Parts: sequence; structure tokens; C-alpha cells
Amino acid sequence: MPERIYNFSPGPATLPVEVLQQAAKDVVNYHDKGIGLIEMSHRSKDFIAITDEAESLVRELLNIPQNYKILFLQGGASTQFAMVPMNLLGPGKIGSYLNTGTWAKKSIKEAKIIASAHVAYSSEETKFDHVPSDADYTVDPAAEYLYFVSNNTIYGTQFHTFPKSEKMLVCDMSSDIMSRPFDITPFGLVFAGAQKNMGPAGATLVIVREDLLDRVPENVPTMFRYKTHADKGSMFNTPPCFAIYVIGLVCKWLKANGGLPAIEKINKEKAAILYEAIDGTDFYRGHARKDSRSLMNVTFNLPTPELEAKFVQEGSKLGLDGLKGHRSIGGIRASIYNAFPKQGVIDLVEFMKKFEKTA
Amino acid sequence: MPERIYNFSPGPATLPVEVLQQAAKDVVNYHDKGIGLIEMSHRSKDFIAITDEAESLVRELLNIPQNYKILFLQGGASTQFAMVPMNLLGPGKIGSYLNTGTWAKKSIKEAKIIASAHVAYSSEETKFDHVPSDADYTVDPAAEYLYFVSNNTIYGTQFHTFPKSEKMLVCDMSSDIMSRPFDITPFGLVFAGAQKNMGPAGATLVIVREDLLDRVPENVPTMFRYKTHADKGSMFNTPPCFAIYVIGLVCKWLKANGGLPAIEKINKEKAAILYEAIDGTDFYRGHARKDSRSLMNVTFNLPTPELEAKFVQEGSKLGLDGLKGHRSIGGIRASIYNAFPKQGVIDLVEFMKKFEKTA
Repeated sequence: MPERIYNFSPGPATLPVEVLQQAAKDVVNYHDKGIGLIEMSHRSKDFIAITDEAESLVRELLNIPQNYKILFLQGGASTQFAMVPMNLLGPGKIGSYLNTGTWAKKSIKEAKIIASAHVAYSSEETKFDHVPSDADYTVDPAAEYLYFVSNNTIYGTQFHTFPKSEKMLVCDMSSDIMSRPFDITPFGLVFAGAQKNMGPAGATLVIVREDLLDRVPENVPTMFRYKTHADKGSMFNTPPCFAIYVIGLVCKWLKANGGLPAIEKINKEKAAILYEAIDGTDFYRGHARKDSRSLMNVTFNLPTPELEAKFVQEGSKLGLDGLKGHRSIGGIRASIYNAFPKQGVIDLVEFMKKFEKTA
Repeated sequence: MPERIYNFSPGPATLPVEVLQQAAKDVVNYHDKGIGLIEMSHRSKDFIAITDEAESLVRELLNIPQNYKILFLQGGASTQFAMVPMNLLGPGKIGSYLNTGTWAKKSIKEAKIIASAHVAYSSEETKFDHVPSDADYTVDPAAEYLYFVSNNTIYGTQFHTFPKSEKMLVCDMSSDIMSRPFDITPFGLVFAGAQKNMGPAGATLVIVREDLLDRVPENVPTMFRYKTHADKGSMFNTPPCFAIYVIGLVCKWLKANGGLPAIEKINKEKAAILYEAIDGTDFYRGHARKDSRSLMNVTFNLPTPELEAKFVQEGSKLGLDGLKGHRSIGGIRASIYNAFPKQGVIDLVEFMKKFEKTA
């Protein structure tokens, strides 16, 4: 096996190599039981234990009290864009939204199909280069919730403090969940696709306050009701078994490495190394406003698109892979989630310095 | 590694051991590229090639013409119970349903939430021990489609010839897709969860006639519209990458072993061995009517529930695992999908003979 490349992809993304190795063993023969993990009935004792453990690790790491349900669903964050208003609003009711990028916009679109959406703030005019402070907007008094995206993968922006509001918060944490501790109590619901910080594609974590489960209107189909899944411990139908299993392994890895306070410290260190390199020269220019910079996705530009293309290509040859920015803002994006190694960031910075000299 | 057990689970179910071994390698290091399969961006060249290949193998094996789209979705068959009427009916329109068991009933329930369902036939009175012939029912003349479940996992019944109707057919083939060739042309839509005959849990195959994509009413959320996924080649959002990859491996295995005509022959042989054993004694009694017997799930009873429990327990000790029948009809169920080895069926029959003698 050749050395591992440094994978800067925005998701699916780098996972801990120990997790991959354990998964490989279990896929063929789970705990030497003579059956592959992905062949096991989801109703078997062994698989129920896997799901229970994954759930309890998520609860422990994120410090989630018992009045919140933890669900493993399918369909990605994009399905949640619709399920949130289907379950928490219903026709005629209003959700307030902070429009900080593509994913927020998509969720606003779905809310408008199902109910009503009030856009309390938008940073679209400045190419989504920042997230707002509380003073920058007013939430609709009639709104049922205030919805925001904690980290904007495409633009490299992140809320460093969460909005304070009289309304309950609803948050898409797909790209920074498990990267830092936070207090769940102001939240009605938090969701996150697994494929950035928690595992492979194919499972969506939903954390929902129990008292909200009964809000759902009667005409919502069974599979799109949170209550359906909450009542059956995510086992109403066959769940995405492999993805749940890997989430459990990633949570174990996180716990063994000191949990969220420890990973937050490392995430800050990694991002600081990269932002320092960007700020130390005019050759590289950060896309995000400094007060909104993401610790997960670091976005920057070079003097010309041609140089950016060359940068991506030469980086790739050195095993620095997946650095091409999203087409909507171009440039470079380095995604450095929890499992991305610090050495990869150091190597990237070294490459940046060399590239600048020879460019 | 100890020997593999014989896994008679109804799904997730036995997969070819070569597939598991290949998956294990690729999970850690895909084709020696220094990146794990489940870490790869779904937008990467390598992963797009995986999806394209899986799609084209499904098309080839099932002989699907170009005017049908092949989609890999999430949410299982249970999500399709709602998506079918959301996309093909809409308020006020009617679907005709053949109620041959639990999964048919659930799909009828969803159709009634969204539109209108006409139950053209039900075998509920005889504990769903058979599927109907065309002469047994009349389809509602106003119906948009005739919906049926090709194989009923719980009861062990199967349509050996598909319904003939002026209406287009819609079919839940979750538990027997890829087990035999069939002609897609009378079908508007076919769907199947992957976790029985095609791969692990977490992906749902949908085959839909292209001209039906525009039927969807405007108020259906983006993710629940087939058109959304068809327009983007199942890549509108992050797909269930691992499950799609394994489906591709299973399809390659099927093709290498002679495709669907060859696997159908083996499936008939395996089932014949088991039904012959059941019919050769009064000790074992088949649940399904002989004309409706499933080649995938063989259901039978013993003289008493106590003997059935003992049978399951002793079988399990011999490595004959997952034989307990579904709680709704009790008894024994042996699920013998494509990848289930013939030797496992021979061993089961041997065990049945010994058990009868000592009982």
C-alpha cells in the first residue's frame, strides 16, 4: 500500500485510518462471527448493539440531554431542508432563515414550497464572505424558529458564536458537527450529513427535542415524520447500517482522543497555521472576512485563475489532493475536518511558500 | 477467520464473499490510490466512474432500454411507498393496488395520504398465503397504474408471472430483483431496496420511464421528485456512495456468473431442494400456496411453536442462522437470495431430516 495522500475534499472526506482498517475487517467478518457486517440483519442483537452504541456515543460527545431524540436517517441534509418545515411548520407557518450561502438558500426554497420562509439576513451581495452578528438582523416575531447553517463549506465561513434568539434555533451542522462542543438547549433541532466530520455518505444525524415530535401535520407521509423514526429508535425500516456503524467507530476514535474539547484545540491549531500563511503574503487572499473564518474549510484565491489551476495541479502531484475551490467562488479550498492530519496542513503551507516563489 | 455461517436472514442478507473481500480492500485504499473508497468525493472522477459502471451494469443485466432512467436513491422501499403516489398520482388521482402482504399494505396507506388508492385484491383473509391471478381481480378503470409487490418476504409468496393489465405496472421488487430476467416494458416504475439481492442497506434502486418524470405536481419538495435525481444522474446531492459501489460489485459478480438466466436456474434448484424436503413429510408444512411459492423466502411451520423455537436454536448452533420466521406468521423462514450458497440449502435439509427424527 502506497502512502496515504492528503485528501482536502469537502466531503465525503478524510476519515481516521484506524477507522478504515477496523471497517475493512468487519465488512468481511464481523468480530469473527463468520458473517460480514453488511450482511447482518438490522434486527439482529449485534446490529442493534452497534446502533445503540453509536447513539450513546453521539449523546455523550455532544452532551445531549434525554429530552432530545438522536436519529440516524437517510437522504442527506437536502432531505432535511424539506423535513424541517414539513414537521415543524406546516402550511401558513413561518420560519426565519439566515441566508449565508448555497445550502441556506436551498433550505429557504424548500420552506417556501411547504410553508413560509422569512429571510432575516443575507450575505449574498458580498459573495457570502461572512456570517451575521445578532445585531445585524431581526427575526420575524411570528416565526416558529430561527434557522442557520453553522459552517458554510463553499465559502469557508463559520459562526463562532451561535445566534441568540427568543425563538428556538434550528441548525444545519453538516460541515462542523463534532468539531467543537456546544450547548444544545437553545436548539429545537440540529441535523448533519455524516460525510464530513462523522463518517461516510449515507446517514444523516438528526437531534430533535422530544416535545416537537407531535407538531407534524397529519398529511405528512410516514417516512418524512421525525416521530416515525423516533418511536422506533431509527429502526422503523432498514437503516443505513454501514454508515451508522462507521459513525460509531469515528465517535470512539474521537472519545479516545479526548472528545470535542481536545479536537477543537487541534482544529484551531490546524486552521491557524493555514490562515497565518495566507495573511503573511499578498499572493494569497482569503475569501472569508476574518471574523467569519471557518476552521473546517479554508478558502483563498491566487492572483489569477491560471495560477489557481496550476496550484491545484501541482499540489495534486505532491499528494495534496482535492484543493480546487467550489465553482461558485473559484480559487482554492482546503477542507481540514477533524480527521485531517496536522502534518497535511504543514505540508500544504510549505507547498504554498514554494509555489509563490516560483510562480 | 472461522468458517462463514449460513445466513438465512431476510435482509440485510448474504453477499458474495468475493464482493466483501474486494470492498474491504477498497474501503482502506481504493485501487492503491492512497485514499479510502468512503473518503472519496462523490464528484471525483473515480467515484463518478463507479456510479456510471453500476448504472450500466444494472441496465445490462436487467436489459433496460434507454427510455428508462436508473436512479440510486436513499430511504429504502418505505420512502418509495410515498414517492410513487407523490410523483405519479397527486391529489384526486387513483392507483390500483394488489394487497399481498405487509409491504403492499404500507404502500396503500401512503397512497391514501397523498392521493387515492383502490385495493383491487387482497389475500389478507388467508394470511397472505398466495398472490392472485389476473382473473381474480379488476383494476379500477380510472387508475393511473396497477401496483404490486413481486415477492412477499414475510409470507414467502411470489408472482411467477407478472400481472397483465392495460394500465402501466408499478412494482416493489425489493426482495427478488436480479433473481430472474423480466421484461420492463409493461412497467412505468420499478423500485427495490438494495439489501436483499443487490448489496448492503442504504441504497434504493429506482427504474422509471422517462416520460413519467414530468407528472410530478409543483408542490412536491425537491428531494422527493424523481426528476431531481434523474436530471443529475443520482448526484443531485451526496449519494449513498458505499452502497452504490457494492451494488456495482454485486452486478459484476452476477455478470461473471452468467447473468440473470444463470442465477434464475440456480435459484430454482435451491428452492426445489427445500420445497421437496417440506413436501416429503407432514412434520413440515409450507405456509404459501404451492402456486405462489417464493424462490427467495421459503416459509414453513413445525407441529408446535415450541418445536419451531427449538429448531431455530439448534440450527443456529450448527451455523444455520437467521431462520426465525416473521412474528406476523411465526414459524421458520429460510431466505435464500442470489448469493446464498446451494450448500447451505443442502445442509439445512439435512438438519431438517435429523431434527424430525429426534423431535
